[in-house]
Amino acid sequence: MYISINNELFLQENANISVADLSIQRGYGIFDFLKTINHKPIFIGDYFNRFYNSAKEMHLEVELTRNQLHEAILKLIAKNNIPDSGIKIILTGGFSADGYTMVKPNLIIIQTPLNIIENTSGNGLALVSYNHQRQIPQVKTIDYLQAIRLQKFVKENGAHDLLYHNNGKVRECPRANFFMVTDDEVITAKNEILHGITRKKILGMDIHGYTFVERDFTLDEAYQAKEAFISSSTKNAFPVDKIDGKLIGNGKNTITRLINDKLLKLIELDQRD
Amino acid sequence: MYISINNELFLQENANISVADLSIQRGYGIFDFLKTINHKPIFIGDYFNRFYNSAKEMHLEVELTRNQLHEAILKLIAKNNIPDSGIKIILTGGFSADGYTMVKPNLIIIQTPLNIIENTSGNGLALVSYNHQRQIPQVKTIDYLQAIRLQKFVKENGAHDLLYHNNGKVRECPRANFFMVTDDEVITAKNEILHGITRKKILGMDIHGYTFVERDFTLDEAYQAKEAFISSSTKNAFPVDKIDGKLIGNGKNTITRLINDKLLKLIELDQRD
Repeated sequence: MYISINNELFLQENANISVADLSIQRGYGIFDFLKTINHKPIFIGDYFNRFYNSAKEMHLEVELTRNQLHEAILKLIAKNNIPDSGIKIILTGGFSADGYTMVKPNLIIIQTPLNIIENTSGNGLALVSYNHQRQIPQVKTIDYLQAIRLQKFVKENGAHDLLYHNNGKVRECPRANFFMVTDDEVITAKNEILHGITRKKILGMDIHGYTFVERDFTLDEAYQAKEAFISSSTKNAFPVDKIDGKLIGNGKNTITRLINDKLLKLIELDQRD
Repeated sequence: MYISINNELFLQENANISVADLSIQRGYGIFDFLKTINHKPIFIGDYFNRFYNSAKEMHLEVELTRNQLHEAILKLIAKNNIPDSGIKIILTGGFSADGYTMVKPNLIIIQTPLNIIENTSGNGLALVSYNHQRQIPQVKTIDYLQAIRLQKFVKENGAHDLLYHNNGKVRECPRANFFMVTDDEVITAKNEILHGITRKKILGMDIHGYTFVERDFTLDEAYQAKEAFISSSTKNAFPVDKIDGKLIGNGKNTITRLINDKLLKLIELDQRD
């Protein structure tokens, strides 16, 4: 398995960077994550838009143009030969002499086999809520301090993942957006969240009898939803059965399944494109 | 110059770690920073208390006991031969197979020449305030996303550093605590801050006519202070002349100078100990 560092390929066991890097010294970096199906990066334009925007927001220069970055990813894909994969692009603050001042960023691209978790068992996820507002939420930074620190808390609560809320207003999961379904709406948070690419694809859908809405809503509203689901590149639209131990809806997840099917079709279209 | 990684010494140019480390992947790590004077680590007991507490709060195991960590630091000090230095101890989430689950932490110790900035010019610092509450504030994590992102903002405002406040309540600087002096009090924030070791030494002082107080106070109160200063291991007690362009006090900084002298004496005592 090869890893690309500043557009040079290294065997995984040699893919090291200096401890002077600002990611290690100051947690300073951004990233993005997209998938390949049959060697083809999916929705790459959307991911590139977000990645370059994150870099700009954090004053990090991407040395490669979009075309060059695309080439670098294709080079890695060709070398590793993993048809269905996750591609993680990390951009750090670079090697800083004083451990504080930003310098020339380091660009790391890592490919891993894709672990799509299909909801075949019919069981959805159990989430446990936690009062936390991500800082610089619109930027995909490498900051997962709370998510990783709280892994123990999630387990102790018999849950699979966290659901962040800001004083009762539902925000997102650490690595996914959150949606709830009412009688006639599919609702997701509008503000102070990361705008997921899968979320965007869902908001662009048409389902008869339902309106897609971005707005603030409370945890109490989520408890009362007909259905709930999370969206991400690896999970697509994945049902949520429980929040804070409370069962959500009747477990049928009809709309969630419909949305997931529509996502799979969009992915297939992009894969063939 | 040598760097210690998991208690093994590496030349600086070979001090690399795998990009699988959770600090690079997820910004997950803690650190601490202490100084040596004439090869002697100052207030090491206090720094160790904080370091081991940070590790515990973030569920990171320190493989070395306090004695072993002390030995590791002395080994590095002996090898590098820098009498007056800063010692940075970083503990990361370790090499994670899935880039998310915590594993065996990596311990990195870096020594650099100490750059004590004495206030010889008589000029204090200019701070610019910014509304930001650090997450997990009592823990010395490697999260400096805001501080580094805002370096440009600090420069544009003709300031030397940031002063974080939480909706008007003064908190701290990114790498220092903040104090203000009134007619009869020396006041520093109590809550939602990192409890600095230099801050602790100051709060233990006795100055005739002054009470040392930990409490919430507002930016407006700070603007009206007789004196203001920041405290840190490298800056000791360093005067602040301006906040948001407003001059603080009359520029004499009598109490700040007295506190700084007392700090230097405490450091000298510990150095001889």
